Amino acid sequence: MRQIFGNRLGVQRLSPRAVGSAVFLAVMAIAGSSQAAATPSAMIEAPARKAHRVVGVVLYPGFEVLDVFGPVEMWANVPGMKVVMLAEHAGPVRSAQGVEVIATHDFATVGDIDVLMVPGGVGTFKALKDKPLLDFLRAQDQQVELMTSVCTGSAILAKAGLLHGHRATSNKAYFKLAEAQDDGVTWVRKARWVEDGKYITSSGVSAGTDMALGVVARLYGLDGARRLARSLEYQWSEDPNLDPFALP
Amino acid sequence: MRQIFGNRLGVQRLSPRAVGSAVFLAVMAIAGSSQAAATPSAMIEAPARKAHRVVGVVLYPGFEVLDVFGPVEMWANVPGMKVVMLAEHAGPVRSAQGVEVIATHDFATVGDIDVLMVPGGVGTFKALKDKPLLDFLRAQDQQVELMTSVCTGSAILAKAGLLHGHRATSNKAYFKLAEAQDDGVTWVRKARWVEDGKYITSSGVSAGTDMALGVVARLYGLDGARRLARSLEYQWSEDPNLDPFALP
Repeated sequence: MRQIFGNRLGVQRLSPRAVGSAVFLAVMAIAGSSQAAATPSAMIEAPARKAHRVVGVVLYPGFEVLDVFGPVEMWANVPGMKVVMLAEHAGPVRSAQGVEVIATHDFATVGDIDVLMVPGGVGTFKALKDKPLLDFLRAQDQQVELMTSVCTGSAILAKAGLLHGHRATSNKAYFKLAEAQDDGVTWVRKARWVEDGKYITSSGVSAGTDMALGVVARLYGLDGARRLARSLEYQWSEDPNLDPFALP
Repeated sequence: MRQIFGNRLGVQRLSPRAVGSAVFLAVMAIAGSSQAAATPSAMIEAPARKAHRVVGVVLYPGFEVLDVFGPVEMWANVPGMKVVMLAEHAGPVRSAQGVEVIATHDFATVGDIDVLMVPGGVGTFKALKDKPLLDFLRAQDQQVELMTSVCTGSAILAKAGLLHGHRATSNKAYFKLAEAQDDGVTWVRKARWVEDGKYITSSGVSAGTDMALGVVARLYGLDGARRLARSLEYQWSEDPNLDPFALP
């Protein structure tokens, strides 16, 4: 039992083959699935293009905690995805909820990132004027595999000019804030999350967790994402177009 | 818009009347509800017994991030609930996912807490042998209004002897771990969360977010909890007995 817990929750760097086995073993323990006898090599539907990915989560003062930790819960439990918390300056960053989280890496030294995520929160208003942050996003945009956001994080991506000509969504209560950043974006009013090429933007707060599993599905296969969700007793809303909070 | 954001996401200490208005204003902005004209005083169905509550979230090495931040997202967005991160020693505490979160208070000096929450995670195995933690829980048990847990956190409450004679639940993949701590607990195999008097225990990881909204409903009324969920675009599974991950 401990080994399973360790695999699912603790080990971040394994081979792609081990990605499947760790997640699946954990799920088998829960569901008693008839697929328990499947070999690990059969468990990955869509082989990862890369064995290891660095997932960079951008922290700024006033970020919303669930915007960050819904996706982190999902991604950090995929062996092969290494989650890194980063900010302009390394050290504690205070969230909108008051809780402080430590950024271990700063913009200048973090290096290349495969999947970047920008959260929302009340701090978005200041972040929209944060030149080092916007410059960092523009620089990373040149080489990331996926550029993602949760909630009002898409307003920041739009302000940086990254979403111009693309489809995107945002928090429904602050939709005008997103729209105001760039009217050359096709802002989607009904979507749990929107994927347009490498740009993946989610709706408000909780939608980010569903989006994060969408990223897992895209990179590692739908079955793996479903089983990861189940192992965390998470009822994944897996259709990005199903949106009970849609704007008219 | 900014004021609404500020109310919902930033301000933690307001009068009970303001609790309603902050949450409701935010939700009205999203849903365009016909109840928008209701006066703030009409928005609280179940007046809080206490105007302000201190919510203590226990951190220990190897805690699961969503166990903590699902509930923190909900509770910290209720004005009147002040969320405090605590640990044996104040300072950074490393989660099972590697992310470090700062405990601002330690066990010795935190003082009285109204709602205490113990998360799960791979660190549970060591926490079960952590005498200062168990002693702290026993001491707080004498005076808390609600003692809550997420995931394998209930194993820790059981080890401390707090659940003896009560009904409780736990992470389905580690149910035996919970059962092994105290067979004088009625362990419920089908439940999103279980409320037995002041003891509220949830199933694995994501179930904690639903439990946290159940706590909001109990303390501030069901309508307020529903609207809080909606403002965070969260699809609340509000029936504690509805459990798609139930054990046979």
